[in-house]
Amino acid sequence: MDEFSFIANYLRPLAAEGAFALTDDAASFAVPQGYELILTKDALVRGVHFIGDEPAHLIAQKALRVSLSDCAAMGATPKAYLLALMIPPDTSEEWLREFAEGLKSDQETFNIALLGGDTTRTLGELAISVTMLALVPKGTALRRNGAKVGDNIYVSGTIGDAALGLSIANNIFTHGSRTTNHDYLLSRYQLPKPRVTLGQQLRNIASACMDISDGLVQDLGHICKASEVGAEIAWESIPLSHAARACNVSPQAILAGGDDYELLFTAPPASATAIIALGNVTHIGTVTQGNRVKVMNKNNADITPSHKGYKHF
Amino acid sequence: MDEFSFIANYLRPLAAEGAFALTDDAASFAVPQGYELILTKDALVRGVHFIGDEPAHLIAQKALRVSLSDCAAMGATPKAYLLALMIPPDTSEEWLREFAEGLKSDQETFNIALLGGDTTRTLGELAISVTMLALVPKGTALRRNGAKVGDNIYVSGTIGDAALGLSIANNIFTHGSRTTNHDYLLSRYQLPKPRVTLGQQLRNIASACMDISDGLVQDLGHICKASEVGAEIAWESIPLSHAARACNVSPQAILAGGDDYELLFTAPPASATAIIALGNVTHIGTVTQGNRVKVMNKNNADITPSHKGYKHF
Repeated sequence: MDEFSFIANYLRPLAAEGAFALTDDAASFAVPQGYELILTKDALVRGVHFIGDEPAHLIAQKALRVSLSDCAAMGATPKAYLLALMIPPDTSEEWLREFAEGLKSDQETFNIALLGGDTTRTLGELAISVTMLALVPKGTALRRNGAKVGDNIYVSGTIGDAALGLSIANNIFTHGSRTTNHDYLLSRYQLPKPRVTLGQQLRNIASACMDISDGLVQDLGHICKASEVGAEIAWESIPLSHAARACNVSPQAILAGGDDYELLFTAPPASATAIIALGNVTHIGTVTQGNRVKVMNKNNADITPSHKGYKHF
Repeated sequence: MDEFSFIANYLRPLAAEGAFALTDDAASFAVPQGYELILTKDALVRGVHFIGDEPAHLIAQKALRVSLSDCAAMGATPKAYLLALMIPPDTSEEWLREFAEGLKSDQETFNIALLGGDTTRTLGELAISVTMLALVPKGTALRRNGAKVGDNIYVSGTIGDAALGLSIANNIFTHGSRTTNHDYLLSRYQLPKPRVTLGQQLRNIASACMDISDGLVQDLGHICKASEVGAEIAWESIPLSHAARACNVSPQAILAGGDDYELLFTAPPASATAIIALGNVTHIGTVTQGNRVKVMNKNNADITPSHKGYKHF
């Protein structure tokens, strides 16, 4: 299977309006009046962002969802994406077909379509880059720089599952023997759930928002830096899944684990009722003066981890 | 040097309006009324698209220019780009600094700025993906599908230089001893000249346009397929540089060599005078009925190469 057959057989059926059926040098994208175009670009490399023995459709879906999560963090509605696929020479047609099926499945789930991109071979590791285009009513994009002292801090979903899932994929504490809990955590690592709807609901409500991709404490530090504030979070308030609790790991593994793709956001206390009513959202702390992120436990001990999160190089 | 210092020290100074100083999850891009947004995304991998021993600033510039050339092919004015950089662990700060200098230099040359992206390590080969955003007055984007029987076929610049440059980089016919001609061809491989101004001048003139990245004959085949026409080009009319002539290679090496990043376009004969007046443009053939690309020499022999161009996998 060569490049042109792959594009014609597997990618062309995924093409968006404006993609010119993937036959031109570039694509066209229309931004409706009153809307602002939001763009994000990510790269996923085998051995860094995924292990490589996952089914191809899960790799495709994770690549899309990492970028969809960035759109969610901005409160934007995803619309279309460009894809660069760097493929090692031993890649089978079966793998490519299954990868394209993963794209198709998430195109339907998230109502997005393929706008263009590039496919090329690599002598190195399989790598995927997605550029996601999303729309937001002008002036309503969520930013990291609006947190105010006294705001509440919230997260969506549960924290730390994906980092435990990665440990499980690497057999770090399961020694190859897996339970239902382990399968759940592994799925949280392999197939994040970008909070696209929640992001849109938070427009005009959240004072700052981002997605947690590199670890809760490190990422909260980014909001604090952009907003010139500090933060204090309560360890016992951090939402953990049953499966994560069952692993009985240290706070460090939860607080600095990457790949959650949950939303982390702040809002004035007056919005608390409206926010909790959105569901699947937990109040975990308060925006403070200063510039430090502190994690306190119920005994009022500071348990802020020294390693705060994932660095990409 | 970690990811955050690299971004803060070397990438933040390159940030566009709408990039939020590279501190947010995504960027914003404004499309002025009356304009259409054109997007292209490419991936360059060490060992496939560049050799790797080039100075880092040339690698950065080539990564931008490949995408700039796609914008030129659509007649669009490039404005901003997103960058994904996948860096092997042994990459030095010096290399990163020089890479960022290459970006800066081409930002100034082409009047573009950095909108966002991603930096990550890879255990594989250095890889770079650029997503370029460009603007074109609504409805004037050049496409591949408008060539009509009887149209003239043109190319910009000279053809085949970059493929010879790659052979020189690999010491294929120089055996390590290089002349000024060789240096010229090598520079054509390492630092393409995207025809951004010409592309804009061709709006409302060219009937079809694309850039030559994978070989003249194969790429002309793409215009023919999209336009449902054939093409006949005259070997002796194809513009060659002095340096390429001096290499005395077969027509095959010129006709199917990749990496030219010249424009290939068609236009009705009535526009011939206006087109030639643009300068640095050569009439090389005619759009015909059928669906074949034929290359004829002055003795009326068909010298169409059997290998028509580069396939990426």
